[in-house]
This record gives sequence, structure tokens and C-alpha cells, in this order.
Amino acid sequence: MCQSVPMTLVQRAPVCVLGTGLIGGSLLRAAVAAGYEAFGYNRSDSGAEAARRDGFDVSGELPAVLRRAADTDALLVLAVPMPAVEHILAEIAAVAPRCPLTDVVSIKGPVADAVRKHSIEANYVGGHPMAGTAESGWAATDPELFRGAVWAVGVDEGTRVEPWTRVVRLALDCGSVVVPVVADEHDQAVARISHLPHVLAEALAAAGAAGGALSLGLAAGSFRDGTRVAGTAPDLVRAICEPNAAALGQVLDETIAALVTARDTLRADGSLGDVVEAGYRGRTAYNEHTRWEITGIVPGVGDWLGELHRAGRRGGVLRAL
Amino acid sequence: MCQSVPMTLVQRAPVCVLGTGLIGGSLLRAAVAAGYEAFGYNRSDSGAEAARRDGFDVSGELPAVLRRAADTDALLVLAVPMPAVEHILAEIAAVAPRCPLTDVVSIKGPVADAVRKHSIEANYVGGHPMAGTAESGWAATDPELFRGAVWAVGVDEGTRVEPWTRVVRLALDCGSVVVPVVADEHDQAVARISHLPHVLAEALAAAGAAGGALSLGLAAGSFRDGTRVAGTAPDLVRAICEPNAAALGQVLDETIAALVTARDTLRADGSLGDVVEAGYRGRTAYNEHTRWEITGIVPGVGDWLGELHRAGRRGGVLRAL
Repeated sequence: MCQSVPMTLVQRAPVCVLGTGLIGGSLLRAAVAAGYEAFGYNRSDSGAEAARRDGFDVSGELPAVLRRAADTDALLVLAVPMPAVEHILAEIAAVAPRCPLTDVVSIKGPVADAVRKHSIEANYVGGHPMAGTAESGWAATDPELFRGAVWAVGVDEGTRVEPWTRVVRLALDCGSVVVPVVADEHDQAVARISHLPHVLAEALAAAGAAGGALSLGLAAGSFRDGTRVAGTAPDLVRAICEPNAAALGQVLDETIAALVTARDTLRADGSLGDVVEAGYRGRTAYNEHTRWEITGIVPGVGDWLGELHRAGRRGGVLRAL
Repeated sequence: MCQSVPMTLVQRAPVCVLGTGLIGGSLLRAAVAAGYEAFGYNRSDSGAEAARRDGFDVSGELPAVLRRAADTDALLVLAVPMPAVEHILAEIAAVAPRCPLTDVVSIKGPVADAVRKHSIEANYVGGHPMAGTAESGWAATDPELFRGAVWAVGVDEGTRVEPWTRVVRLALDCGSVVVPVVADEHDQAVARISHLPHVLAEALAAAGAAGGALSLGLAAGSFRDGTRVAGTAPDLVRAICEPNAAALGQVLDETIAALVTARDTLRADGSLGDVVEAGYRGRTAYNEHTRWEITGIVPGVGDWLGELHRAGRRGGVLRAL
């Protein structure tokens, strides 16, 4: 029943990055820096050329890149925004359906659905490095982007050991720690800690600018930090947040209710009410949150997926294989 | 008609800081560093002792401190949270009613109202340095806190040249630039760029923590920056935001409406709607906002207050007297 495979045979197999923008391009740089044979595809000629000028092996010919991946049993890393996922998956299904496959897309449920639709789920493992900047494109790539970051890696039912191990090893080799997570819980969590921050930053930036030059001139640290991610390109924000509509809608419901209560108590009795203490408790919990290392779970042995899932939910991370 | 006074006579007159927490204590340090004779009062013995241990002249005896200020024509700087303002003003009215008076409280209208109530408005000039950290108390004080910051200084009708000049000079000597502003426009602006950021940070921190260890463990830059000011002590947040209830209530109305629209369009057609572009435009306007130097307005001459008011509203700052 044990699916475990000799680590030495897979740990440095090639990596093929599909989409070399901020995340994919940084991953390509990080993989090369960690000793992987790594190559990639980018849809825009200018992006691919920029990568080649920096000495990286990036092509604009998707079928050719995928054939090379199939020939070398490369780990495919899908690194395009959600709206472009479907097209790439169709090509993978046609050209390289047996390659191990992961992704770095900001949500997991819709990607997994799309992968199943193309019947290439057998070697798929969802991934999501929690890293980024407000910049985008090859020019913003950084091989150190993932160092010290958290990288969510799927432990959904049916996940196979061999692709899972390759994805975890790549994340660790890029300097991240790995949080094992199932797709729907991932998507609910990122609605709270990634997509809601984007929406609130947008609303805050709009409200500040509506005050004109005086407001912008008086703005200091709280406005600067609270609106930082509103500097992200609008199309990218939409591509990150909108595919998570169900979970994001639910946390927006919660947040709107909290703000309505604050406004109403402020009007009624001059008090912001519970939101101040709830927020302070929340930030304190964040400050005090500590990651503990998951140990003693052997991939492929027993209920390894369930054990990893429960450990990740309790704040556990993998620091080594 | 000209009220101007010889600058050399007033520029280094003593400064008396009432309240030596983060802002007042940092101001005391900055004033001493800039060559002022500066002394202060702090309500808590432990705070006053901490300042004395660091070599600063801070007492817990308010009447004695105010008598010394009156004897030396010191500039009084009211540096307590709004709930404590009333008590200090009553003592000033009793002991040192003719001293020039400013404040560093986060709102201006309610402070001005309280000053008028005690009939000591003749030498009052509102002030608000736009600087701070999530920390509080003497231990967090920093003489460099105001360097490069914006310091709002009142140009309300009836403002007199001599106290106004002393307040501006102090702000400049602390390394800040000065934005001339009238009270109600100040309070509307800070509702947008200081108080709303606090409330949104609290709501975001609460929403993130509601997701438990998985959410907090996956949280990265957008959550960290968006919740930074939620780490501020709840009593201090209330003291900063709640006295500005009218203006804050209005921007909360705007923000709630924007979030409701975003949620509703997300549910209806999977789009966040206009908030993304509006936020991007707002943050871009903030990034591109440049301060221009106000020159050629002589305090006390002609409609100097009106000219400064209009210049401040258009993004002008004073960098020198």
C-alpha cells in the first residue's frame, strides 16, 4: 500500500513553469538558484524575451514547451491568473497529460475543478505560495520572493505521493515552509487574509482620494499601509479575488455587518462598539501566532493525507521532507 | 494692522508639554534636541518618573507646571487624549490663561470648542502632527518621530500671529512640514485618512482571526500591513476616533455603500465592480501626490489666514517661516 518513492530519484527532476510573471518568474529564478533544471513558457513575447535576456530558458511556444516537459518528466507549474488557466490545462491535457502538475494560483477549488474537467487530476497537487508584491511582470521577479514564506500545498483526498513530494520539495528548496491544506478550507482562509485585505484597501484608497489634496497631503502611516495593495494592477486584483466569489462574499457579509454595527453605535452613543476590541484581539492573535513543525507523518503511509490536513488546520508546517 | 513680531524674540521661548505619552513625550525630546528650554507634566507618576530617569524635566504637579509656564511665557502644548482635554483646559484657564496654547490631539473641532468654553481661545492655535506608531507611552517616544512628517496647524478665523508663529516654528524645528488647515476640514480629512484606516484595520483583523490558526498561518503581507494599526491599544483607538463621530460616520456610510455594491455585484455576476478601479486610482493619486511649498504669504499681513487656508487645501505646505 505504500506509495513512497526514493527521494533521490525525484528531488531534482526538471521544473517547467507556465507563465513567468511575478510569481512564476520568481519561481523559475528560485528553482534555477536551487539547482533545478528549469524552463518555462510565457504568453507575451516581451515577457519571454525579458526572461531570456536575463539568461533563463523561456519560450512563447506552449506545445513545444509541454512536449519537452513530457519528454523529461518535468513538474509542470501552472503560474497564470485564473482566467488563463483553462487554456493552459487544455494544452497540457493534449500534450503532457501524465506530467506531475501543480499551480500557484490564488485559489484552489476552481483550479481543481478545471483540472478534473480535463481528466488530468491523477498527478495534480494544488499549491499557493503566500508571497507577492504590488508589482507584476518579469521585471518584478525575485529569486528570494519565497524565502521565509508560507506555501500552501494540497492534501485533498486522492492526492498521490510522488507529485506531492515533488511539489513540497520544490517549495522547501525555494525557502518556504509548507502548510498542508485542502482546497475549500484554503479558499475560505485566503478570502479572509488575502482577498478581503485587497477589497478593504481599495475601498480605503477610494475614500482617502475622495478627500482631495488636503486628505492625501495629511495621510500618514495608517493610510499608507492600509492602501498598499490597492497599488496592484486592477486586472490582477480581479483575477485574484473574483474567482473566490462565494467565500469572499461571505466574509464581506461579516465585515459589512461589523462596520454597520460600528457606525450605528457611533451615531447612537459615540462608541465604535466591539469592533475595536475584536480587532485588537485579532491582531494580537496574529502577532502571537507561532508555527509548529509537523513531524512523524510519512507520505503514503496510513492516513497521511488526513493527518497532514488536521495538522495544517492547527497551524502546523512542514520544514523538511 | 500688522501683528508681526520680531522672530528672534519668540523663536526659542520655552515649551511646556502637557502629557508625555508617545506624541507629547516625543515632542519634548524633539524640542530639547532643537535647543528649546522644554519641560512637562504627566498625570501618571510612572510616566513622569520614566521621563525624569531619561533626563527630562517632567513633573506630576499640574498647577506648579502651569505656574512655571505662565512665569516664563512658555508655549503650552496639550498632548493628552481627547477624554482628558477638558480637565487640563480648566487648569490652564485657572493658572496660565494668557500663555500661547496649542495641542497635538487627533481632532481639532472638539478641542477648539472646549478651548472657547474656557474663554482661552485668544492665544490658541490648533495643531496635529501626522505621526505615530502602534506603540504608546514614554517608552515609545522618539525625538525623530516628527522628522519628515506633516504637521497640521490651524488657520481658523481669529488666529493671532504670535502664537501661530511659535507653533509653526516648533513644528519646523521638529523636522516637520506644516499644512495650514481649518478645524472642520481637518476633521473631515483625518476621518478619511486616519480614523477610517483604524476602523477597517480592526474589522480586517477580527475577520482574519475568525478563520483560526489556518488563516493566521497563511496570512502574508496584505493582512500584516492592513491590520498593523489594529495593534494599537483599544482605549487609544477610541480616544482618537470616537470624538470625530460625525465625520467618521459619514465616511463609514460611503465605505459601507462601496463594500455593499462590491459584494452585490460579486454575487450577481462575479465582478467586484468599480471599487477595484476606484481604489487603484486613489492609491495612484496618493503615490503621485506632491507637496508644493507655500511662499510669499506674510503672517499678519492682509488675508494671510484665508490665503494659507486655500493653499493648504490645494496641497501646499510651509517649509520655513
